[in-house]
Amino acid sequence: MTAPRYDVIGIGNAIVDVLARTEDDFLVRQRMPKGSMALIDEARAEAIYAAMGPAIEISGGSAANTVVGVASFGGHAGFFGKVKDDALGRVFAHDIRAAGVAFTSLPASSGPSTARSYILVTPDGERTMNTYLGAAQHLSSGDISEDAIAAASITYLEGYLWDPKNAKDAFLKAARIAHASKRSVALTLSDAFCVDRWRGEFLGLLRDGTVDLVFANERELHSLYQTADFATGVASLRKDVPLAVVTRSEKGAVIVSRDGTEVVPAFPVERVVDATGAGDLFAAGFLYGFARKLPHAISARLGALAAAEVISHIGARPERKLSDLARENGLPV
Amino acid sequence: MTAPRYDVIGIGNAIVDVLARTEDDFLVRQRMPKGSMALIDEARAEAIYAAMGPAIEISGGSAANTVVGVASFGGHAGFFGKVKDDALGRVFAHDIRAAGVAFTSLPASSGPSTARSYILVTPDGERTMNTYLGAAQHLSSGDISEDAIAAASITYLEGYLWDPKNAKDAFLKAARIAHASKRSVALTLSDAFCVDRWRGEFLGLLRDGTVDLVFANERELHSLYQTADFATGVASLRKDVPLAVVTRSEKGAVIVSRDGTEVVPAFPVERVVDATGAGDLFAAGFLYGFARKLPHAISARLGALAAAEVISHIGARPERKLSDLARENGLPV
Repeated sequence: MTAPRYDVIGIGNAIVDVLARTEDDFLVRQRMPKGSMALIDEARAEAIYAAMGPAIEISGGSAANTVVGVASFGGHAGFFGKVKDDALGRVFAHDIRAAGVAFTSLPASSGPSTARSYILVTPDGERTMNTYLGAAQHLSSGDISEDAIAAASITYLEGYLWDPKNAKDAFLKAARIAHASKRSVALTLSDAFCVDRWRGEFLGLLRDGTVDLVFANERELHSLYQTADFATGVASLRKDVPLAVVTRSEKGAVIVSRDGTEVVPAFPVERVVDATGAGDLFAAGFLYGFARKLPHAISARLGALAAAEVISHIGARPERKLSDLARENGLPV
Repeated sequence: MTAPRYDVIGIGNAIVDVLARTEDDFLVRQRMPKGSMALIDEARAEAIYAAMGPAIEISGGSAANTVVGVASFGGHAGFFGKVKDDALGRVFAHDIRAAGVAFTSLPASSGPSTARSYILVTPDGERTMNTYLGAAQHLSSGDISEDAIAAASITYLEGYLWDPKNAKDAFLKAARIAHASKRSVALTLSDAFCVDRWRGEFLGLLRDGTVDLVFANERELHSLYQTADFATGVASLRKDVPLAVVTRSEKGAVIVSRDGTEVVPAFPVERVVDATGAGDLFAAGFLYGFARKLPHAISARLGALAAAEVISHIGARPERKLSDLARENGLPV
């Protein structure tokens, strides 16, 4: 086993966020469950865009945000995801590369356009997402470089990838390559509604050892085990996977391993401007620490720090260099 | 003369801003004069984009920002400007309409793509712009609706329009229609480098009565009269145009009329995050007040308030509803 060239390679939906502030009653009128991520078709995308207010366009995508965070900590990161060769596809490619992430996936020259997520941010900072997957859903096994995966400490997969059929195969292929090279595979459950759609298959991935490390928030944990009791959920998770981190917003994060559980506090935030990317950036800090073999509690603090940075402004990618921020807070990077 | 249907109609370059944070040394390496606006061709646009960091896309354009501000104060506003029928053109059209501005200009179906301004924001909040005019420079007289101009209290023109040849004709046609309908014509000098390019013609527009109201910042004033002395510049302006407002950043604004000069203070700002749009939004407040026949000093305070709002966040369009903000600050709207 050679030394890894990458700390983390992410595989996920390559998405440009179209982000607008809105009032709560807009969500009610549009029948959008607050805080959820819904998949939409092109017609619905057009209708939502026509109804929503002035927006900004900013590169997003859950695993893409995470690897940008890893790079901002000073880690070596790569990404596989599918865009089309159109204006938004070029925006996505520019931004992820400019953030220092290796991104070599070829854009599609035909077919649906680059994926967009229409993100409505309410005055409380909560975000409600409607995602048109477009080109992203055509990511397939052929887009995954075996060499790159074999050279990455961690391959990180987003649960959202379980929605497009081809992406599932890419996901499983990457996991096989990673394990054949004695690397780790991490998964985020992504969204409670996503867990609802794929509960059985997600549990299978945990129980059959496809996944070594799982990220979930409280709602996703409750959805996964169909329980309203946090302790029950944690106990189940502990049996199903070697390592898990459950994030609980301002209540901090719980590290769940075979050794037991450990609670790590959140970093205080003056005002939540836009919650988009909180989970993605928590994962960035934890994965960076995990790849660098830091203690789990330190890794979780790095995650909490990155999450605090990203929710204090608009957009799901860090504005500050996270390695600087970590040093200012006495954390090792 | 019938009652106006619009408070302000803006005519300007329809531009999407591509905005990134940068360090000062990037400007030095790229030989960009800090705070300036340079016109660039497509090859230079590609090169700058490749070199710059992760960005956000957000609708801009000087006069477009201004009319969005007028609408946010509760005014009736319209805009004429040229985009292409491409992804960024649709973004521009969506955002200006979603802000409540009438925008009926037909997009170009062929030719260069929608205009972009690559805006580099340094840690001090100052912005340096490189603009690829693309489709915007093909705005022509045919795009200007005579009925709309005749129905607007004020037709507002940006100095940047003097760069593309066809737009000049559109500019002059609009001014003729406005005056034939006993309406006012306002002009912003836009940028000191722009004044440098067109000094003689701008002075001509003031002295021959094409323009009734002019906006300038200190640098533009100094460039227009090629003087380093503020008082000399103001005295010259007073002879050349019935009404002018000179903005001086944190030193406030000076209203220059045949009656004399009046200084109006700036609103305090905790931290300048991004100076983009400061002048555009000052003009929005002043024009709204002018159209509603408020005293000039009140109009200038509305302008100062709008400028303070827009420099406290990223992007050149207001995030707060300016009519609410005015009421909170005891100003009439």
